[in-house]
Amino acid sequence: MSAHRFDVLGLGNAIVDVIAPVDDEFLVEADVHKGSMQLVDQERAQRLYDAMGATTIVSGGSAANTIAGLSSLGGKGAFVGKVAADEAGRAFAHDIRAAGVHFSTLPASEGPSTARCLILVTPDGQRTMNTFLGACQNLTSADIDAEEVSSAKVLYLEGYLWDPPAAKQAFKTASGIAHAAGREVALTLSDVFCVDRHQQEFLGLMRDGFIDIVFANESELHALYQTADFATAVAALRRENVLAAITRSEKGAVIVRGDETWEVPAAPIENLVDTTGAGDLFAAGFLAGYTRSQPLDYCARLGALAASEIIQHFGARPETELARLADQSLYLREHSRAAEGA
Amino acid sequence: MSAHRFDVLGLGNAIVDVIAPVDDEFLVEADVHKGSMQLVDQERAQRLYDAMGATTIVSGGSAANTIAGLSSLGGKGAFVGKVAADEAGRAFAHDIRAAGVHFSTLPASEGPSTARCLILVTPDGQRTMNTFLGACQNLTSADIDAEEVSSAKVLYLEGYLWDPPAAKQAFKTASGIAHAAGREVALTLSDVFCVDRHQQEFLGLMRDGFIDIVFANESELHALYQTADFATAVAALRRENVLAAITRSEKGAVIVRGDETWEVPAAPIENLVDTTGAGDLFAAGFLAGYTRSQPLDYCARLGALAASEIIQHFGARPETELARLADQSLYLREHSRAAEGA
Repeated sequence: MSAHRFDVLGLGNAIVDVIAPVDDEFLVEADVHKGSMQLVDQERAQRLYDAMGATTIVSGGSAANTIAGLSSLGGKGAFVGKVAADEAGRAFAHDIRAAGVHFSTLPASEGPSTARCLILVTPDGQRTMNTFLGACQNLTSADIDAEEVSSAKVLYLEGYLWDPPAAKQAFKTASGIAHAAGREVALTLSDVFCVDRHQQEFLGLMRDGFIDIVFANESELHALYQTADFATAVAALRRENVLAAITRSEKGAVIVRGDETWEVPAAPIENLVDTTGAGDLFAAGFLAGYTRSQPLDYCARLGALAASEIIQHFGARPETELARLADQSLYLREHSRAAEGA
Repeated sequence: MSAHRFDVLGLGNAIVDVIAPVDDEFLVEADVHKGSMQLVDQERAQRLYDAMGATTIVSGGSAANTIAGLSSLGGKGAFVGKVAADEAGRAFAHDIRAAGVHFSTLPASEGPSTARCLILVTPDGQRTMNTFLGACQNLTSADIDAEEVSSAKVLYLEGYLWDPPAAKQAFKTASGIAHAAGREVALTLSDVFCVDRHQQEFLGLMRDGFIDIVFANESELHALYQTADFATAVAALRRENVLAAITRSEKGAVIVRGDETWEVPAAPIENLVDTTGAGDLFAAGFLAGYTRSQPLDYCARLGALAASEIIQHFGARPETELARLADQSLYLREHSRAAEGA
């Protein structure tokens, strides 16, 4: 295994988030599933946008948020994703590079515009996402740079990549390259409806050895194993040959691998504003610890800490330097105390 | 005087704000004057943007912020300003209409792009603004709808309009129409460097009867009368035939008209994040009270309350409904107690 240039290389949909606060009635009238991500076509996106209040525009995209978070924790990150050569695409490229992330995917010079995610945030801080995939549909295997992928300790893939059809092949190509180079491959299940759409394929990816690490929240896990019972889903997951990180919102996180289990509580927060990016940032913190060979329960705490920052403001990119937050965190220090006591 | 459709019609530069946190060193390296607004050309704007971190994009523009704030307080507002027919221009139009403001100025179909203001926010919450005027330079008298201007109780003009040369005539045209209809005309001095650029003309506007109400902060007033002494500046202002609202940051606000004086303390805040829009929102609150014929010290408190909301988050448009904030405000109720005690 050669020296690495990156801790994590993320492959995902390159998306600009368009955020507005709404009340619950708006969700009912717009006929959207609260808390989920739905794909919308350009016309529906326009109609939703017209109905939304004044918006805040920030870069997003699930894996992109994760890599930006990793970078904020001092990790070396790279991202691969497709924007168009338009204003939003230039803003996306600016922002991810400004976060210290290596990003060299060529923008699509023709075809649909840069992807937008219209995010409706209700007063309870819950977010409901409506994604117009746009230029993301132009991501193909040709965008995978074998040297880049080989030089990252972990390749991180978002389940959402299963939505634009051509990206699926890019996903498999990248996974093959990473494994050939002796690297690990991580997958996030992304969203409960995403799992519904691609359940058999996601299970196949784990069972065919494409995936070494899985990130999921409780509902995604329930959807993956078609059960309403958490213990049943976790038991099934233990039989896959993967390391699994399961997030449970205010109940914290559970890491399982075969018969082993690590549990951590949620990091404390003062004010829940917008849950967008909670899962993405959990993965960022977890992988920042993991690529530095930290104990798995410390990795989970670092993930929970990163998630706690992101849910206290609009948008899914950190507004404070997470490395400094980690340095000052009592919650992280509790790990050491727990370890000493053990 | 005929019936009115609008409480306030604002005329100003239509600008999209591009905001990023920076440290003080960044300002030194970029050679910008902390706390001020500077005009930049497209090339300089691009260089600054390249150097900035990840950004948050929201609609801005001084008078536009004021009218959006007025609307949030339940007032009926209209705005006139020039965007281009591009993504940023469409976002500006969406956002101001979403705020409940009437906006019907035609976008420029050719020429430069929609104006951007690159806002650098330092850890002390101070903002430093770099404005590329772009399409604002295409605002002319042809954009003034006499019927619209005549039907607003107050015409509100921003001093920044003196920067794009053609807008000056639009400004005077609108003022003439408003006065012919028996309406009042308000001017904000906008920024200390803006006053430096146009000092004699601003004084002329007051002395030639173009302006009935003036908004200024302390430093703008010092620049207007070329004095470093607040009392001297206020004494000079009392001799102009205007109602003047002077904001003094954490020292509150002073309203003067001839020999009369009304003083109010600043509204309490918990956490100073970004001072962008403080002056704009003071004007919003003041005018919301003024157009409902409230006592002037109550108007000033309503202004200070609106400003206190805006400086506790990024961006210069309200994130909460200001009318509800006003309903619940102990600070506003102190006015009634003060009035009863008097």
